[in-house]
Amino acid sequence: MSEDLVDKVMAEVMKKVSPRLGDGAPSARPAVTEFVGTNRLGDSIGLVIANVDSDLLAMMRLERDYKSLGILGARTGAGPQIFAADEAVKATNAEVLSIEMARDTKGGAGHGSLVVFGAEDVSDARRAVEVALAELDRTFGDIYANDAGHLEFQYTARASYALQKAFGAPLGRAFGITVGAPAAIGVVLADTAVKASTIDLIGYSSPAHGTSLTNEVIAAFSGDSGAVRQAIIAAREVGMPLLAALGTQPESASTPYI
Amino acid sequence: MSEDLVDKVMAEVMKKVSPRLGDGAPSARPAVTEFVGTNRLGDSIGLVIANVDSDLLAMMRLERDYKSLGILGARTGAGPQIFAADEAVKATNAEVLSIEMARDTKGGAGHGSLVVFGAEDVSDARRAVEVALAELDRTFGDIYANDAGHLEFQYTARASYALQKAFGAPLGRAFGITVGAPAAIGVVLADTAVKASTIDLIGYSSPAHGTSLTNEVIAAFSGDSGAVRQAIIAAREVGMPLLAALGTQPESASTPYI
Amino acid sequence: MSEDLVDKVMAEVMKKVSPRLGDGAPSARPAVTEFVGTNRLGDSIGLVIANVDSDLLAMMRLERDYKSLGILGARTGAGPQIFAADEAVKATNAEVLSIEMARDTKGGAGHGSLVVFGAEDVSDARRAVEVALAELDRTFGDIYANDAGHLEFQYTARASYALQKAFGAPLGRAFGITVGAPAAIGVVLADTAVKASTIDLIGYSSPAHGTSLTNEVIAAFSGDSGAVRQAIIAAREVGMPLLAALGTQPESASTPYI
Repeated sequence: MSEDLVDKVMAEVMKKVSPRLGDGAPSARPAVTEFVGTNRLGDSIGLVIANVDSDLLAMMRLERDYKSLGILGARTGAGPQIFAADEAVKATNAEVLSIEMARDTKGGAGHGSLVVFGAEDVSDARRAVEVALAELDRTFGDIYANDAGHLEFQYTARASYALQKAFGAPLGRAFGITVGAPAAIGVVLADTAVKASTIDLIGYSSPAHGTSLTNEVIAAFSGDSGAVRQAIIAAREVGMPLLAALGTQPESASTPYI
Repeated sequence: MSEDLVDKVMAEVMKKVSPRLGDGAPSARPAVTEFVGTNRLGDSIGLVIANVDSDLLAMMRLERDYKSLGILGARTGAGPQIFAADEAVKATNAEVLSIEMARDTKGGAGHGSLVVFGAEDVSDARRAVEVALAELDRTFGDIYANDAGHLEFQYTARASYALQKAFGAPLGRAFGITVGAPAAIGVVLADTAVKASTIDLIGYSSPAHGTSLTNEVIAAFSGDSGAVRQAIIAAREVGMPLLAALGTQPESASTPYI
Repeated sequence: MSEDLVDKVMAEVMKKVSPRLGDGAPSARPAVTEFVGTNRLGDSIGLVIANVDSDLLAMMRLERDYKSLGILGARTGAGPQIFAADEAVKATNAEVLSIEMARDTKGGAGHGSLVVFGAEDVSDARRAVEVALAELDRTFGDIYANDAGHLEFQYTARASYALQKAFGAPLGRAFGITVGAPAAIGVVLADTAVKASTIDLIGYSSPAHGTSLTNEVIAAFSGDSGAVRQAIIAAREVGMPLLAALGTQPESASTPYI
């Protein structure tokens, strides 16, 4: 009997205290006009400001001025939100005006994020945020984490403006990233990917250069669609056992899509 | 019976492992002459150096040289410590010589802090630290946190030198800040506050600009006393349901004062 | 009986959820040629790339180009890894090419790290990583942590190239560091050490200057062997009760060596 009890209590406790990508059951929908929605993945929240204050707008360092802003923020994740934002700008009349990456992840090794969309019409800003929130279910699919770190893989057949702004991705070409934390693993992911097929390495970020001091190496690749995908998959195959060597088998935060 | 037991164990466990702003019961008072005191809020510690080594002083990048230093440090919180330091410089013969904000909060989304006071006389440095430690009980009052993030609101009817140094607050005028984490929520707080009354937005910090890469947007406001207070309260009313949408109802770390 | 059960469950749970410097039992050795080994201290992993891709090499900002790279990465700790790397360069034909410090520690107040070694021959790169991984058992010895922060002390009788690169240590002379988190404690450690014996204070880093925004003050000392050691020991004696004032008695992560 006592073993059962121990298991039961353990299950309850681990549910409450283990590292989570989101906070489980959301509360009631807030009665605030700015609220668009949330996604439990990454503690992501979507907001909209229909007519932003002009003094505030002037301080926000946005690329262009729009009166309506869509805002996507998250405690955990920048890659998933940026790839989701990329789909949002493809699908709507909104632009991406700024992308900032906090050193966050609720104690993990990576980034949180703040993405600001702009649109002439608040319905377009809202729509961009809605699309991005929904896309997160997919873009969290190839994040694999354990207590010692995480791996992230992203891929798109056609990069748009969010990926151009965040990573310098060439517009319209296939694009992907590999991320490893602790950063040592990310170095090997980068080397594996660039050797696996004929692609262009267009970015390399490490704790002291190009990240927000995260314990990650982020490599970015552009090229033909099949080649980029093959490179990302090769890196994933090498990365999983390396991260597993530091702890438990890493698990996907959602459903893998690559 | 077994349900009772589960609850009992859960209570014990959560007491030990849930995120805390402080570490509960302090140990015995250390027999170290530099020790002034602690405040469990934010794991805050107050220290004093009666006659600082001159080589060390030369490396500390302080605004002025004093032989006696008061030191206030914390794992969690920068706003509460800075507002508390502001009361300390009003109440004593000490000056604020430097304010630094670490990316910390024991895994949360915000800042820890290091405030250095200087005085000609060690008793003045000590007094400044004592006042600041005591003020923390108040200045943690309008911090509201859940597992997904936090909100912070601060207000003073009359800003002094610590707030001038940290935020560029005009001396002698009412001053307040709104802070939201994840940063997306902080954008809406800023917009709400600046629209709620006739005040001056004098600062806007975000993950990539003006913070230590925290997942926060911090807005700073100056103006007439009633107007600043009204703006801060309006932002708090909008922020609470937004943060609650990501998790549990946020709770005050102490007793609200605004 | 129920008390026993509570204790038993508590022990299980705390094992799983309490802050750890490593992840306990590693998984099976990964079948990846780049893998060298791990050390559970700091979630440290050692990797090697026999013949690094030239495009990647060009982006890695290394001091010199080598075709074989050794890589040491960790979630928790930079001091232990750098002092371990220093032993590795003394003992092998490898060079240290870069040292980066992430803002990490799995939610703690300090740094994670990424150290890259280079060698003409992959066996030399591998050997450097192996030596460094093994040295971590020693260099984690004078790290003392509780839930409120940590202290770190390191000492070597003869500094080599890794310590020169990371801290500007004069080659061949005795060298040591004191680290305190929250940073306030580190200020007192620095002052105590520099007053305790005739040594040179050659570095002082704080949250806003010289760290990766960690909540630490790191002081670096050079001088005669006995004097540096004596200074470090004096600082440790003052630091332990100060950190204990914020929580439980700090415990060594391994076996103290100073």
